Amino acid sequence: MAGVTTTTPATQTDHVADLIARHFGVSAGQLQVGGVAISELVRQFGSPLYVYDLDVARRQYQLLRQTLPPRFDICFSVKANPNQALLRTFVGQGSGLEIASSGELHQALAAGCPAHKILFAGPGKTEQELELALAQQIGEIHVESRTEARRLARLAELKHTRARISLRVNPAAAVEGGGMRMGAKAVPFGIDEDQLDDLLDELLPIPALEIVGLHLFVGTQILDHEQLLKQYRAGLEIARHLQQRLGRPLQTIDLGGGLGVPYFAHETRLDLCQLQVGLRAWMEEIARGAEFSEVRFVLEPGRFLAAEMGLYVTQVTDVKTSRGKKFAIVDGGMHHHLAASGNLGQTIKRNYPVAVLNKLDCVTTETIDVVGPLCTPLDVLARGLELPPIEIGDWIGVFQSGAYGRSASPLGFLSRQAPVEVVVERGVARLSRKRGTDHDYLADQLLCD
Amino acid sequence: MAGVTTTTPATQTDHVADLIARHFGVSAGQLQVGGVAISELVRQFGSPLYVYDLDVARRQYQLLRQTLPPRFDICFSVKANPNQALLRTFVGQGSGLEIASSGELHQALAAGCPAHKILFAGPGKTEQELELALAQQIGEIHVESRTEARRLARLAELKHTRARISLRVNPAAAVEGGGMRMGAKAVPFGIDEDQLDDLLDELLPIPALEIVGLHLFVGTQILDHEQLLKQYRAGLEIARHLQQRLGRPLQTIDLGGGLGVPYFAHETRLDLCQLQVGLRAWMEEIARGAEFSEVRFVLEPGRFLAAEMGLYVTQVTDVKTSRGKKFAIVDGGMHHHLAASGNLGQTIKRNYPVAVLNKLDCVTTETIDVVGPLCTPLDVLARGLELPPIEIGDWIGVFQSGAYGRSASPLGFLSRQAPVEVVVERGVARLSRKRGTDHDYLADQLLCD
Repeated sequence: MAGVTTTTPATQTDHVADLIARHFGVSAGQLQVGGVAISELVRQFGSPLYVYDLDVARRQYQLLRQTLPPRFDICFSVKANPNQALLRTFVGQGSGLEIASSGELHQALAAGCPAHKILFAGPGKTEQELELALAQQIGEIHVESRTEARRLARLAELKHTRARISLRVNPAAAVEGGGMRMGAKAVPFGIDEDQLDDLLDELLPIPALEIVGLHLFVGTQILDHEQLLKQYRAGLEIARHLQQRLGRPLQTIDLGGGLGVPYFAHETRLDLCQLQVGLRAWMEEIARGAEFSEVRFVLEPGRFLAAEMGLYVTQVTDVKTSRGKKFAIVDGGMHHHLAASGNLGQTIKRNYPVAVLNKLDCVTTETIDVVGPLCTPLDVLARGLELPPIEIGDWIGVFQSGAYGRSASPLGFLSRQAPVEVVVERGVARLSRKRGTDHDYLADQLLCD
Repeated sequence: MAGVTTTTPATQTDHVADLIARHFGVSAGQLQVGGVAISELVRQFGSPLYVYDLDVARRQYQLLRQTLPPRFDICFSVKANPNQALLRTFVGQGSGLEIASSGELHQALAAGCPAHKILFAGPGKTEQELELALAQQIGEIHVESRTEARRLARLAELKHTRARISLRVNPAAAVEGGGMRMGAKAVPFGIDEDQLDDLLDELLPIPALEIVGLHLFVGTQILDHEQLLKQYRAGLEIARHLQQRLGRPLQTIDLGGGLGVPYFAHETRLDLCQLQVGLRAWMEEIARGAEFSEVRFVLEPGRFLAAEMGLYVTQVTDVKTSRGKKFAIVDGGMHHHLAASGNLGQTIKRNYPVAVLNKLDCVTTETIDVVGPLCTPLDVLARGLELPPIEIGDWIGVFQSGAYGRSASPLGFLSRQAPVEVVVERGVARLSRKRGTDHDYLADQLLCD
């Protein structure tokens, strides 16, 4: 296999090779995760499975930590992967957690995250969720609308407490780049910049609301450091205005997630070195003035921290040819990994990096569709993939599966067993979430005739 | 509201009116499901919820039963909706069940379906699944490949039993129509017609395999009766050939699902009257010869039987405007109803029939996007919908949600609570599946540090 590339991988095979060289290993043609062979993982835990290498997660966290100036805090976005072992790994490294539901708040607390390092974002928070967040005295509640601000004020008054809030603002000016463009368009998230002053007129006099921060979601899946820096900088004008209105400095400016990872061939890895240089220069500029001398910047990466440490592993149960086209049928599919099947926001399905994990030394000789066992043409994990000769029993792995994998998938579709989650740490694999059973779908039904 | 339309509804409002007139009721501007007001359902069971009107399901079954000639059997496709109360309803009407996993086999048995009325289809069946199907002596196992036939023969021999199998054949000739075209293209399902003879050479001498049927999946979501009839007829040539090779008559010819329901405006409802006339004529033709005098025809409808009896109900938690565009934020979303969000096989999102369930007497005055609480732009239930003036607390319902709804959705996404399932029968509503909790996502994790 080729080594770590410094350029853009031209094919999906190069992309897989690059990921393996960065994070995994190969022995006798077989993938090793944290030193544990895939055959050993499947022998111990069965197939299909998700495996997360916590050491890769830790390295990825440290890589980002070293890229960011000391004034930046990292809050891992729990929605990317709520696995407890993973959350504990990030919390252990000093990460805060960004949550988007009361379920995630419970996950964050169970993982040992100090309440003051928890941020709660997302539209449509319910009264129950806001009450819980207030009771737990979490770091910040990100206010997404006037309704939410009022709801929160009322609840805080009732509980004789103050809510620490951050205002999520949807910028008036468009800043292009990344998978999305979050400014200058109609969105259900946050408060439009041109509505901010009017909202502040209402909120500033309310003692139960302590406005401590500004939240500017810059986009998602951005691979260009210039674009990130441009978007970060664009937010400062809004922060300046908000400080003027508050008459005191902000404690936090949350720049959202945005850091991307390459999923597909021809995507270029984010240049962390250039990002670091750019951020330092920006911090120096800021240090020249006094207005942001105290502020902490927050990033909420999900994908960037979690995607690469995770792998979805399935086993080939059948190989067949229909009208000259070859299919490998595997024991997992879209019900376990919706995103890889192209049904989570992709308009045109593109293949995740996929490889035959026990034939990494072999050359590709065949073009194969990898499909799951669901009785629907949607259940495709990879289409027209160049693979080595494939046989029943081979293990097919989907890389980049540590974020938006299992938890974003319709696990109950066709009443199939949910996949296990295995974590590997310091060369030891252990079960993290057990396999579902055939009876799970009956268990929660009230069987009254 | 308008009455039952005999023509194609031109707008989504007409479509909703048509569905209400057919299956539901309105009192004081509020939707009634089986005579129970939505406000009463939400008061008793909370929001969001799925509600299934079992009387509608029963009527839909009887409608189809009366459309089909006596020689046709109906096997409800469990994957469309595995709810136990629903399965029991269909089984109680005489339906068999078509399953696609061992989980669904357990569901079918729990619902009281006689084993001989269970058919097992789908690619990549595992050894465990085949063993279970043999042990339960189900009606037919649909063989999807040479590998599967061999696997099954070996297992049946080991257990000293015979497997009753049906061969799923992928026709050589294309028959157009419906949402898909299942013939004359490369698919992972079934055996290509041109490989059939070669496979039979191998299978015919195996005493452990009893070939009783032929399975021809004609497509899905077909709304044109002519198209259905054309596809059904096209299958007979293959059946004739298979009988010649077997040297005895087939017991069953399974024509798959295929019967569609209109989801979107401008889609025309399947004309059951014309389908009935066409099927009778076909049966008369067949009765003139002797070759198919004993065969039973099988249909495996899912959507057609289940879609219309189900409704997904959410409550508005926020109403906001961004850049002149209005958004209603509701307490449910894509995590509960992936198909309605356009992320289950749609290339371009089209709106399901959606209405404000407590304002059915009001005229539409606004254009609104209905979005869920997930912190992602994918969480859209309906886009640019014409609705009456919307307020916090209103109930928004997604019609046509009885098939491929809850069970096909990523319930764990953002660790949110799974929605309850409520069934209404003879005017009485009862809980069928309880709401998930915030702690469900922790419960199945092994919390070892």
